[in-house]
Amino acid sequence: MNKRPLGIFDSGIGGLTVVKEIQNILPEENLIYLGDTARVPYGTRSRETIVRFALQDSEYLLNNHVKVLIIACNTVSSVALEEIKRQANVPVFDVVTYGIDEGIAQTKSKSIAVIGTNATINSHAYLKAFKRRDTSLKIIEKACPLLVPFIEEGELEGEGIEWITKKYLSEIINSDVDTLVLGCTHYPLIIPIFKALLPNITIVNPAKRMSESIKVYLDQHGLENNSQDYLNFSFTDLNEKTTDIAEKFLGKSIASLASKITPFT
Amino acid sequence: MNKRPLGIFDSGIGGLTVVKEIQNILPEENLIYLGDTARVPYGTRSRETIVRFALQDSEYLLNNHVKVLIIACNTVSSVALEEIKRQANVPVFDVVTYGIDEGIAQTKSKSIAVIGTNATINSHAYLKAFKRRDTSLKIIEKACPLLVPFIEEGELEGEGIEWITKKYLSEIINSDVDTLVLGCTHYPLIIPIFKALLPNITIVNPAKRMSESIKVYLDQHGLENNSQDYLNFSFTDLNEKTTDIAEKFLGKSIASLASKITPFT
Repeated sequence: MNKRPLGIFDSGIGGLTVVKEIQNILPEENLIYLGDTARVPYGTRSRETIVRFALQDSEYLLNNHVKVLIIACNTVSSVALEEIKRQANVPVFDVVTYGIDEGIAQTKSKSIAVIGTNATINSHAYLKAFKRRDTSLKIIEKACPLLVPFIEEGELEGEGIEWITKKYLSEIINSDVDTLVLGCTHYPLIIPIFKALLPNITIVNPAKRMSESIKVYLDQHGLENNSQDYLNFSFTDLNEKTTDIAEKFLGKSIASLASKITPFT
Repeated sequence: MNKRPLGIFDSGIGGLTVVKEIQNILPEENLIYLGDTARVPYGTRSRETIVRFALQDSEYLLNNHVKVLIIACNTVSSVALEEIKRQANVPVFDVVTYGIDEGIAQTKSKSIAVIGTNATINSHAYLKAFKRRDTSLKIIEKACPLLVPFIEEGELEGEGIEWITKKYLSEIINSDVDTLVLGCTHYPLIIPIFKALLPNITIVNPAKRMSESIKVYLDQHGLENNSQDYLNFSFTDLNEKTTDIAEKFLGKSIASLASKITPFT
Protein backbone atom coordinates (compact mmCIF):
# COMPACT_ATOMS: atom_id res chain seq x y z
CA MET A 1 0.00 0.00 0.00
CA ASN A 2 1.18 3.51 -0.80
CA LYS A 3 -0.62 6.74 -0.05
CA ARG A 4 1.48 8.97 -2.34
CA PRO A 5 -0.73 10.66 -4.95
CA LEU A 6 -1.09 10.02 -8.64
CA GLY A 7 0.26 13.06 -10.46
CA ILE A 8 -1.59 14.11 -13.59
CA PHE A 9 -1.11 17.13 -15.80
CA ASP A 10 -2.58 18.77 -18.85
CA SER A 11 -2.18 22.04 -20.73
CA GLY A 12 -5.50 23.14 -19.24
CA ILE A 13 -8.76 21.55 -18.19
CA GLY A 14 -9.13 18.94 -20.95
CA GLY A 15 -7.27 16.43 -18.79
CA LEU A 16 -10.16 16.44 -16.35
CA THR A 17 -11.94 14.00 -18.68
CA VAL A 18 -8.96 11.73 -17.96
CA VAL A 19 -9.32 12.30 -14.22
CA LYS A 20 -12.94 11.21 -14.55
CA GLU A 21 -11.85 7.85 -16.03
CA ILE A 22 -9.10 7.44 -13.43
CA GLN A 23 -11.61 8.12 -10.66
CA ASN A 24 -13.92 5.46 -12.05
CA ILE A 25 -11.24 2.80 -12.05
CA LEU A 26 -9.04 3.96 -9.14
CA PRO A 27 -11.46 5.63 -6.71
CA GLU A 28 -9.24 5.06 -3.68
CA GLU A 29 -6.20 6.92 -5.00
CA ASN A 30 -5.07 10.37 -3.88
CA LEU A 31 -4.56 12.65 -6.84
CA ILE A 32 -2.83 15.92 -7.74
CA TYR A 33 -3.91 17.53 -11.00
CA LEU A 34 -2.00 20.39 -12.61
CA GLY A 35 -3.65 22.37 -15.43
CA ASP A 36 -1.50 25.06 -17.07
CA THR A 37 -4.50 27.29 -17.72
CA ALA A 38 -2.31 30.42 -17.85
CA ARG A 39 -0.66 29.12 -21.03
CA VAL A 40 -3.25 26.84 -22.60
CA PRO A 41 -3.52 25.89 -25.46
CA TYR A 42 -0.28 23.99 -26.16
CA GLY A 43 -1.51 22.48 -29.44
CA THR A 44 -0.86 25.60 -31.50
CA ARG A 45 2.69 26.22 -30.26
CA SER A 46 6.11 25.09 -31.46
CA ARG A 47 7.66 21.80 -30.34
CA GLU A 48 10.39 23.65 -28.42
CA THR A 49 7.90 25.69 -26.40
CA ILE A 50 5.67 22.68 -25.68
CA VAL A 51 8.67 20.71 -24.36
CA ARG A 52 9.71 23.61 -22.12
CA PHE A 53 6.23 24.04 -20.68
CA ALA A 54 5.70 20.28 -20.25
CA LEU A 55 8.96 19.82 -18.34
CA GLN A 56 7.92 22.59 -15.95
CA ASP A 57 4.54 20.91 -15.41
CA SER A 58 6.15 17.54 -14.86
CA GLU A 59 8.74 18.95 -12.44
CA TYR A 60 6.00 20.54 -10.35
CA LEU A 61 4.31 17.17 -9.89
CA LEU A 62 7.58 15.31 -9.25
CA ASN A 63 8.38 17.85 -6.53
CA ASN A 64 5.05 16.86 -4.98
CA HIS A 65 6.29 13.25 -4.66
CA VAL A 66 3.75 11.62 -6.93
CA LYS A 67 4.06 7.85 -7.29
CA VAL A 68 3.31 7.84 -11.03
CA LEU A 69 3.23 10.65 -13.58
CA ILE A 70 0.26 10.75 -15.94
CA ILE A 71 0.36 12.88 -19.09
CA ALA A 72 -3.29 13.69 -19.76
CA CYS A 73 -2.52 15.79 -22.81
CA ASN A 74 -2.14 14.34 -26.28
CA THR A 75 -0.08 17.30 -27.45
CA VAL A 76 2.50 16.76 -24.70
CA SER A 77 2.40 12.97 -25.13
CA SER A 78 3.02 13.44 -28.85
CA VAL A 79 5.94 15.84 -28.73
CA ALA A 80 7.57 15.68 -25.27
CA LEU A 81 7.19 12.11 -23.99
CA GLU A 82 10.87 11.16 -24.25
CA GLU A 83 12.00 14.36 -22.53
CA ILE A 84 9.56 13.79 -19.66
CA LYS A 85 10.59 10.15 -19.25
CA ARG A 86 14.22 11.26 -18.97
CA GLN A 87 13.27 13.77 -16.28
CA ALA A 88 10.95 11.51 -14.27
CA ASN A 89 12.10 9.18 -11.49
CA VAL A 90 8.69 7.45 -11.46
CA PRO A 91 6.76 5.56 -14.16
CA VAL A 92 5.19 7.75 -16.84
CA PHE A 93 1.79 6.95 -18.39
CA ASP A 94 0.66 8.87 -21.45
CA VAL A 95 -2.59 8.97 -23.40
CA VAL A 96 -1.07 8.40 -26.83
CA THR A 97 0.37 4.99 -25.92
CA TYR A 98 -3.04 3.76 -24.77
CA GLY A 99 -4.87 5.32 -27.70
CA ILE A 100 -2.65 3.16 -29.90
CA ASP A 101 -3.28 -0.01 -27.84
CA GLU A 102 -7.03 0.46 -27.80
CA GLY A 103 -7.22 1.50 -31.47
CA ILE A 104 -5.47 -1.71 -32.50
CA ALA A 105 -7.67 -3.77 -30.17
CA GLN A 106 -10.83 -2.33 -31.69
CA THR A 107 -10.22 -2.15 -35.44
CA LYS A 108 -11.37 -4.93 -37.73
CA SER A 109 -10.97 -3.10 -41.05
CA LYS A 110 -7.39 -2.18 -40.08
CA SER A 111 -8.29 1.36 -41.01
CA ILE A 112 -8.09 3.82 -38.09
CA ALA A 113 -8.56 7.58 -37.87
CA VAL A 114 -6.96 9.87 -35.28
CA ILE A 115 -8.08 13.43 -34.60
CA GLY A 116 -6.26 16.01 -32.46
CA THR A 117 -4.68 19.44 -32.24
CA ASN A 118 -2.30 20.83 -34.86
CA ALA A 119 0.75 19.92 -32.76
CA THR A 120 -0.42 16.36 -32.10
CA ILE A 121 -1.26 15.65 -35.72
CA ASN A 122 1.76 17.44 -37.20
CA SER A 123 4.05 15.40 -34.91
CA HIS A 124 2.68 12.19 -36.52
CA ALA A 125 3.20 10.54 -33.12
CA TYR A 126 0.08 8.40 -33.55
CA LEU A 127 0.87 7.49 -37.15
CA LYS A 128 4.45 6.45 -36.35
CA ALA A 129 3.43 4.42 -33.30
CA PHE A 130 0.61 2.63 -35.15
CA LYS A 131 2.96 1.76 -38.00
CA ARG A 132 5.60 0.46 -35.60
CA ARG A 133 3.00 -1.95 -34.24
CA ASP A 134 1.52 -3.02 -37.57
CA THR A 135 2.75 -1.75 -40.92
CA SER A 136 -0.43 -2.94 -42.65
CA LEU A 137 -2.62 -0.46 -40.75
CA LYS A 138 -4.14 2.36 -42.76
CA ILE A 139 -4.13 5.55 -40.68
CA ILE A 140 -5.94 8.81 -41.38
CA GLU A 141 -4.73 11.76 -39.28
CA LYS A 142 -6.79 14.93 -39.09
CA ALA A 143 -6.09 18.11 -37.14
CA CYS A 144 -9.29 19.70 -35.76
CA PRO A 145 -7.94 22.95 -34.28
CA LEU A 146 -11.29 24.68 -33.74
CA LEU A 147 -12.87 21.91 -31.69
CA VAL A 148 -11.00 22.91 -28.51
CA PRO A 149 -12.14 26.57 -28.60
CA PHE A 150 -15.72 25.49 -29.36
CA ILE A 151 -15.71 23.05 -26.43
CA GLU A 152 -14.05 25.54 -24.08
CA GLU A 153 -16.77 28.05 -24.99
CA GLY A 154 -19.40 25.50 -24.02
CA GLU A 155 -20.59 25.13 -27.63
CA LEU A 156 -21.16 21.40 -27.25
CA GLU A 157 -24.17 21.10 -29.52
CA GLY A 158 -25.94 22.95 -32.29
CA GLU A 159 -25.24 24.15 -35.77
CA GLY A 160 -21.75 25.57 -35.23
CA ILE A 161 -20.03 22.57 -33.67
CA GLU A 162 -21.88 20.23 -36.06
CA TRP A 163 -20.73 22.21 -39.07
CA ILE A 164 -17.08 22.37 -38.09
CA THR A 165 -16.94 18.72 -36.97
CA LYS A 166 -18.50 17.55 -40.23
CA LYS A 167 -15.97 19.64 -42.15
CA TYR A 168 -13.07 18.05 -40.26
CA LEU A 169 -14.42 14.50 -40.54
CA SER A 170 -15.44 14.57 -44.21
CA GLU A 171 -12.54 12.38 -45.33
CA ILE A 172 -13.23 9.89 -42.52
CA ILE A 173 -16.97 9.75 -43.25
CA ASN A 174 -16.20 8.65 -46.79
CA SER A 175 -13.69 5.94 -45.88
CA ASP A 176 -13.49 2.37 -44.58
CA VAL A 177 -12.30 3.58 -41.17
CA ASP A 178 -14.03 1.61 -38.39
CA THR A 179 -12.23 3.13 -35.36
CA LEU A 180 -11.82 6.78 -34.37
CA VAL A 181 -9.19 7.60 -31.72
CA LEU A 182 -9.95 10.78 -29.80
CA GLY A 183 -6.44 12.24 -29.74
CA CYS A 184 -7.40 15.21 -27.56
CA THR A 185 -8.83 15.11 -24.07
CA HIS A 186 -11.47 17.72 -24.90
CA TYR A 187 -13.16 15.50 -27.44
CA PRO A 188 -15.01 13.09 -25.10
CA LEU A 189 -17.37 15.99 -24.42
CA ILE A 190 -18.73 15.91 -27.97
CA ILE A 191 -18.97 12.15 -28.46
CA PRO A 192 -22.68 12.54 -29.43
CA ILE A 193 -21.61 14.75 -32.37
CA PHE A 194 -19.07 12.15 -33.52
CA LYS A 195 -21.62 9.34 -33.14
CA ALA A 196 -24.20 11.20 -35.20
CA LEU A 197 -21.71 11.72 -38.03
CA LEU A 198 -20.08 8.28 -37.77
CA PRO A 199 -22.79 5.93 -36.49
CA ASN A 200 -20.94 2.70 -37.33
CA ILE A 201 -17.52 3.62 -35.97
CA THR A 202 -16.00 2.61 -32.63
CA ILE A 203 -14.88 5.66 -30.71
CA VAL A 204 -11.76 5.27 -28.58
CA ASN A 205 -11.12 7.41 -25.51
CA PRO A 206 -7.52 6.50 -24.59
CA ALA A 207 -8.06 7.44 -20.94
CA LYS A 208 -10.07 4.29 -20.16
CA ARG A 209 -7.40 1.82 -21.20
CA MET A 210 -4.70 3.97 -19.60
CA SER A 211 -6.56 3.98 -16.27
CA GLU A 212 -6.86 0.19 -16.34
CA SER A 213 -3.17 -0.10 -17.08
CA ILE A 214 -2.27 2.20 -14.16
CA LYS A 215 -4.41 0.02 -11.90
CA VAL A 216 -2.56 -3.12 -13.00
CA TYR A 217 0.79 -1.41 -12.45
CA LEU A 218 -0.12 -0.22 -8.94
CA ASP A 219 -1.49 -3.64 -7.96
CA GLN A 220 1.55 -5.50 -9.29
CA HIS A 221 3.95 -3.22 -7.44
CA GLY A 222 2.04 -3.00 -4.16
CA LEU A 223 1.57 0.73 -4.74
CA GLU A 224 -2.23 0.88 -4.55
CA ASN A 225 -3.99 2.98 -1.93
CA ASN A 226 -6.99 1.67 0.00
CA SER A 227 -8.75 4.90 0.88
CA GLN A 228 -8.76 8.31 -0.81
CA ASP A 229 -7.74 11.21 1.44
CA TYR A 230 -7.70 14.04 -1.08
CA LEU A 231 -8.10 15.31 -4.61
CA ASN A 232 -6.05 18.41 -5.37
CA PHE A 233 -6.65 20.50 -8.48
CA SER A 234 -4.05 23.17 -9.19
CA PHE A 235 -4.29 25.64 -12.05
CA THR A 236 -1.83 28.30 -13.16
CA ASP A 237 -4.77 30.59 -13.89
CA LEU A 238 -8.20 30.40 -12.39
CA ASN A 239 -11.38 32.27 -13.06
CA GLU A 240 -15.07 31.51 -12.72
CA LYS A 241 -15.27 30.27 -16.26
CA THR A 242 -12.49 27.73 -15.63
CA THR A 243 -14.29 26.13 -12.72
CA ASP A 244 -17.58 26.17 -14.67
CA ILE A 245 -16.07 24.34 -17.63
CA ALA A 246 -14.07 22.07 -15.32
CA GLU A 247 -17.34 20.92 -13.82
CA LYS A 248 -18.57 19.90 -17.27
CA PHE A 249 -15.37 17.99 -17.93
CA LEU A 250 -15.19 16.16 -14.64
CA GLY A 251 -18.91 15.72 -14.15
CA LYS A 252 -18.82 17.29 -10.70
CA SER A 253 -17.89 20.57 -9.03
CA ILE A 254 -14.25 21.24 -8.20
CA ALA A 255 -14.65 24.84 -7.04
CA SER A 256 -13.87 23.93 -3.44
CA LEU A 257 -10.92 21.71 -4.42
CA ALA A 258 -9.25 24.02 -6.93
CA SER A 259 -6.41 26.39 -6.16
CA LYS A 260 -4.31 28.77 -8.20
CA ILE A 261 -0.55 28.40 -8.24
CA THR A 262 2.10 30.44 -9.99
CA PRO A 263 5.01 28.06 -10.22
CA PHE A 264 6.53 29.20 -13.48
CA THR A 265 4.94 32.24 -15.10
CA MET B 1 14.30 64.25 -34.41
CA ASN B 2 14.64 61.02 -32.49
CA LYS B 3 15.65 57.62 -33.85
CA ARG B 4 14.51 55.58 -30.84
CA PRO B 5 11.89 53.02 -31.86
CA LEU B 6 8.18 52.90 -31.25
CA GLY B 7 7.47 49.97 -28.94
CA ILE B 8 4.32 48.02 -29.60
CA PHE B 9 3.06 44.85 -28.00
CA ASP B 10 0.19 42.42 -28.22
CA SER B 11 -0.74 39.05 -26.74
CA GLY B 12 0.07 37.49 -30.11
CA ILE B 13 -0.09 38.45 -33.76
CA GLY B 14 -3.36 40.40 -33.77
CA GLY B 15 -1.43 43.60 -33.06
CA LEU B 16 0.14 43.36 -36.50
CA THR B 17 -3.05 44.88 -37.90
CA VAL B 18 -2.15 47.86 -35.70
CA VAL B 19 1.43 47.87 -37.03
CA LYS B 20 -0.05 48.04 -40.52
CA GLU B 21 -1.92 51.25 -39.64
CA ILE B 22 1.11 52.72 -37.89
CA GLN B 23 3.26 51.96 -40.92
CA ASN B 24 0.77 53.76 -43.16
CA ILE B 25 0.83 56.91 -41.09
CA LEU B 26 4.36 56.81 -39.65
CA PRO B 27 6.44 55.09 -42.35
CA GLU B 28 9.72 56.67 -41.21
CA GLU B 29 9.65 55.33 -37.65
CA ASN B 30 11.76 52.48 -36.31
CA LEU B 31 9.62 49.91 -34.59
CA ILE B 32 9.93 47.01 -32.15
CA TYR B 33 6.96 44.64 -31.94
CA LEU B 34 6.57 42.08 -29.20
CA GLY B 35 3.96 39.33 -29.59
CA ASP B 36 3.55 36.95 -26.64
CA THR B 37 2.71 34.01 -28.90
CA ALA B 38 3.84 31.49 -26.26
CA ARG B 39 0.95 32.57 -24.01
CA VAL B 40 -1.68 33.88 -26.40
CA PRO B 41 -4.66 34.25 -25.99
CA TYR B 42 -4.96 36.66 -23.06
CA GLY B 43 -8.68 37.28 -23.53
CA THR B 44 -9.77 34.08 -21.78
CA ARG B 45 -7.58 34.51 -18.69
CA SER B 46 -8.12 36.17 -15.32
CA ARG B 47 -7.43 39.86 -14.73
CA GLU B 48 -4.52 39.05 -12.40
CA THR B 49 -2.77 36.87 -14.97
CA ILE B 50 -3.33 39.37 -17.80
CA VAL B 51 -1.80 42.17 -15.70
CA ARG B 52 1.24 40.03 -14.86
CA PHE B 53 1.83 39.06 -18.48
CA ALA B 54 1.24 42.62 -19.74
CA LEU B 55 3.75 44.14 -17.31
CA GLN B 56 6.37 41.64 -18.50
CA ASP B 57 5.68 42.58 -22.14
CA SER B 58 5.82 46.26 -21.37
CA GLU B 59 9.05 45.93 -19.38
CA TYR B 60 10.70 44.12 -22.29
CA LEU B 61 9.96 47.06 -24.59
CA LEU B 62 10.94 49.70 -22.03
CA ASN B 63 14.29 47.91 -21.62
CA ASN B 64 14.70 48.37 -25.36
CA HIS B 65 14.49 52.16 -24.92
CA VAL B 66 11.34 52.77 -26.91
CA LYS B 67 10.21 56.38 -27.14
CA VAL B 68 6.52 55.58 -26.81
CA LEU B 69 4.73 52.42 -25.66
CA ILE B 70 1.80 51.25 -27.76
CA ILE B 71 -0.66 48.67 -26.42
CA ALA B 72 -2.00 46.96 -29.52
CA CYS B 73 -4.21 44.60 -27.55
CA ASN B 74 -7.71 45.47 -26.44
CA THR B 75 -7.64 42.91 -23.63
CA VAL B 76 -4.53 44.48 -22.10
CA SER B 77 -5.83 48.02 -22.71
CA SER B 78 -9.08 47.07 -20.99
CA VAL B 79 -7.69 45.45 -17.86
CA ALA B 80 -4.07 46.57 -17.35
CA LEU B 81 -3.79 50.13 -18.67
CA GLU B 82 -3.32 51.84 -15.30
CA GLU B 83 -0.69 49.32 -14.18
CA ILE B 84 1.27 49.81 -17.39
CA LYS B 85 1.08 53.60 -17.17
CA ARG B 86 2.50 53.43 -13.65
CA GLN B 87 5.37 51.26 -14.89
CA ALA B 88 6.18 53.25 -18.04
CA ASN B 89 8.55 56.21 -18.16
CA VAL B 90 7.34 57.10 -21.67
CA PRO B 91 3.90 58.01 -23.04
CA VAL B 92 1.49 55.09 -23.38
CA PHE B 93 -0.99 54.82 -26.26
CA ASP B 94 -3.73 52.18 -26.13
CA VAL B 95 -6.32 51.01 -28.61
CA VAL B 96 -9.34 51.32 -26.30
CA THR B 97 -8.89 55.08 -25.79
CA TYR B 98 -8.92 55.69 -29.54
CA GLY B 99 -11.78 53.27 -30.15
CA ILE B 100 -13.80 55.47 -27.80
CA ASP B 101 -12.73 58.71 -29.54
CA GLU B 102 -13.52 57.41 -33.00
CA GLY B 103 -16.78 55.75 -31.94
CA ILE B 104 -18.06 59.05 -30.56
CA ALA B 105 -16.86 60.92 -33.64
CA GLN B 106 -18.75 58.55 -35.94
CA THR B 107 -22.09 57.87 -34.26
CA LYS B 108 -25.17 59.88 -35.15
CA SER B 109 -27.78 57.64 -33.50
CA LYS B 110 -25.76 57.74 -30.25
CA SER B 111 -26.05 53.98 -30.23
CA ILE B 112 -22.71 52.17 -30.45
CA ALA B 113 -21.77 48.50 -30.31
CA VAL B 114 -18.41 47.12 -29.16
CA ILE B 115 -17.23 43.57 -29.80
CA GLY B 116 -14.19 41.88 -28.26
CA THR B 117 -12.81 38.99 -26.23
CA ASN B 118 -14.38 37.75 -23.01
CA ALA B 119 -11.85 39.67 -20.89
CA THR B 120 -12.34 42.95 -22.79
CA ILE B 121 -16.13 42.80 -22.67
CA ASN B 122 -16.36 41.52 -19.08
CA SER B 123 -14.11 44.39 -17.93
CA HIS B 124 -16.68 46.88 -19.31
CA ALA B 125 -13.73 49.16 -20.09
CA TYR B 126 -15.38 50.43 -23.28
CA LEU B 127 -18.80 50.86 -21.65
CA LYS B 128 -17.39 52.81 -18.70
CA ALA B 129 -15.22 55.06 -20.88
CA PHE B 130 -18.06 55.80 -23.31
CA LYS B 131 -20.39 56.68 -20.42
CA ARG B 132 -17.76 58.95 -18.84
CA ARG B 133 -17.66 60.89 -22.10
CA ASP B 134 -21.41 61.01 -22.73
CA THR B 135 -23.98 59.48 -20.38
CA SER B 136 -26.66 59.60 -23.09
CA LEU B 137 -24.82 57.06 -25.26
CA LYS B 138 -26.46 53.67 -25.64
CA ILE B 139 -23.79 50.97 -25.69
CA ILE B 140 -24.16 47.31 -26.63
CA GLU B 141 -21.22 45.13 -25.58
CA LYS B 142 -20.81 41.65 -27.03
CA ALA B 143 -18.08 39.11 -26.39
CA CYS B 144 -17.20 37.10 -29.51
CA PRO B 145 -14.73 34.54 -28.12
CA LEU B 146 -14.65 32.20 -31.12
CA LEU B 147 -13.73 34.84 -33.69
CA VAL B 148 -10.05 34.86 -32.67
CA PRO B 149 -9.60 31.07 -33.08
CA PHE B 150 -11.42 31.18 -36.43
CA ILE B 151 -9.22 34.01 -37.67
CA GLU B 152 -6.01 32.41 -36.36
CA GLU B 153 -6.98 29.22 -38.22
CA GLY B 154 -7.30 31.24 -41.43
CA GLU B 155 -11.09 30.69 -41.56
CA LEU B 156 -11.70 34.21 -42.86
CA GLU B 157 -14.66 33.42 -45.09
CA GLY B 158 -17.29 30.77 -45.64
CA GLU B 159 -20.14 29.18 -43.78
CA GLY B 160 -18.44 28.71 -40.39
CA ILE B 161 -17.22 32.25 -39.74
CA GLU B 162 -20.46 33.66 -41.20
CA TRP B 163 -22.56 31.50 -38.90
CA ILE B 164 -20.69 32.36 -35.72
CA THR B 165 -20.45 36.07 -36.55
CA LYS B 166 -24.16 36.27 -37.27
CA LYS B 167 -24.88 34.53 -33.98
CA TYR B 168 -22.75 37.03 -32.07
CA LEU B 169 -24.14 40.08 -33.88
CA SER B 170 -27.84 39.15 -33.76
CA GLU B 171 -28.67 41.72 -31.10
CA ILE B 172 -26.75 44.42 -32.99
CA ILE B 173 -28.39 43.58 -36.32
CA ASN B 174 -31.82 44.21 -34.77
CA SER B 175 -30.94 47.54 -33.12
CA ASP B 176 -30.47 51.23 -33.92
CA VAL B 177 -26.69 50.92 -33.58
CA ASP B 178 -24.94 52.88 -36.34
CA THR B 179 -21.32 52.35 -35.25
CA LEU B 180 -19.45 49.13 -34.53
CA VAL B 181 -16.13 49.40 -32.68
CA LEU B 182 -13.77 46.50 -33.39
CA GLY B 183 -12.52 45.91 -29.86
CA CYS B 184 -10.04 43.23 -30.87
CA THR B 185 -7.11 43.60 -33.25
CA HIS B 186 -7.94 40.36 -35.05
CA TYR B 187 -11.26 41.65 -36.29
CA PRO B 188 -10.06 43.95 -39.11
CA LEU B 189 -9.34 40.76 -41.06
CA ILE B 190 -13.03 39.90 -41.31
CA ILE B 191 -14.42 43.36 -42.06
CA PRO B 192 -16.15 41.96 -45.19
CA ILE B 193 -18.17 39.60 -42.95
CA PHE B 194 -19.22 42.48 -40.69
CA LYS B 195 -20.12 44.64 -43.69
CA ALA B 196 -22.28 41.92 -45.20
CA LEU B 197 -24.21 41.50 -41.95
CA LEU B 198 -24.33 45.21 -41.07
CA PRO B 199 -24.33 47.07 -44.41
CA ASN B 200 -25.39 50.45 -42.96
CA ILE B 201 -23.07 50.57 -39.98
CA THR B 202 -19.79 52.46 -39.68
CA ILE B 203 -17.00 50.12 -38.65
CA VAL B 204 -14.32 51.59 -36.40
CA ASN B 205 -10.78 50.20 -36.32
CA PRO B 206 -9.23 52.06 -33.34
CA ALA B 207 -5.72 51.67 -34.75
CA LYS B 208 -6.19 54.36 -37.39
CA ARG B 209 -7.06 57.16 -35.00
CA MET B 210 -4.40 55.99 -32.55
CA SER B 211 -1.74 56.14 -35.25
CA GLU B 212 -2.74 59.68 -36.17
CA SER B 213 -2.58 60.67 -32.53
CA ILE B 214 0.90 59.17 -32.13
CA LYS B 215 2.04 61.16 -35.16
CA VAL B 216 0.70 64.40 -33.64
CA TYR B 217 2.46 63.63 -30.36
CA LEU B 218 5.79 62.88 -32.01
CA ASP B 219 5.61 66.01 -34.17
CA GLN B 220 4.68 68.26 -31.25
CA HIS B 221 7.53 66.94 -29.12
CA GLY B 222 10.20 66.85 -31.80
CA LEU B 223 10.41 63.08 -31.46
CA GLU B 224 9.68 62.11 -35.06
CA ASN B 225 12.18 60.14 -37.13
CA ASN B 226 12.96 61.06 -40.74
CA SER B 227 14.08 57.69 -42.08
CA GLN B 228 13.27 54.15 -41.03
CA ASP B 229 16.29 51.99 -40.22
CA TYR B 230 14.57 48.84 -38.96
CA LEU B 231 11.45 46.93 -38.10
CA ASN B 232 11.94 44.29 -35.43
CA PHE B 233 9.33 41.61 -34.73
CA SER B 234 9.91 39.52 -31.63
CA PHE B 235 7.73 36.61 -30.61
CA THR B 236 7.88 34.44 -27.51
CA ASP B 237 7.00 31.44 -29.68
CA LEU B 238 7.52 31.10 -33.37
CA ASN B 239 6.53 28.45 -35.85
CA GLU B 240 5.77 28.40 -39.56
CA LYS B 241 2.10 28.95 -38.94
CA THR B 242 2.81 32.12 -36.93
CA THR B 243 4.74 33.74 -39.75
CA ASP B 244 2.11 32.62 -42.28
CA ILE B 245 -0.72 34.22 -40.33
CA ALA B 246 1.42 37.23 -39.50
CA GLU B 247 1.77 37.87 -43.21
CA LYS B 248 -2.02 37.97 -43.55
CA PHE B 249 -2.28 40.42 -40.67
CA LEU B 250 0.46 42.77 -41.77
CA GLY B 251 -0.10 42.43 -45.48
CA LYS B 252 3.52 41.52 -46.11
CA SER B 253 6.07 38.89 -45.14
CA ILE B 254 7.91 39.22 -41.86
CA ALA B 255 9.71 35.87 -41.94
CA SER B 256 13.09 37.55 -42.40
CA LEU B 257 12.39 40.18 -39.72
CA ALA B 258 10.96 37.90 -37.04
CA SER B 259 12.91 36.41 -34.17
CA LYS B 260 12.06 34.27 -31.21
CA ILE B 261 12.86 35.47 -27.71
CA THR B 262 12.35 33.80 -24.36
CA PRO B 263 12.30 36.72 -21.97
CA PHE B 264 9.85 35.40 -19.39
CA THR B 265 8.63 31.86 -19.93
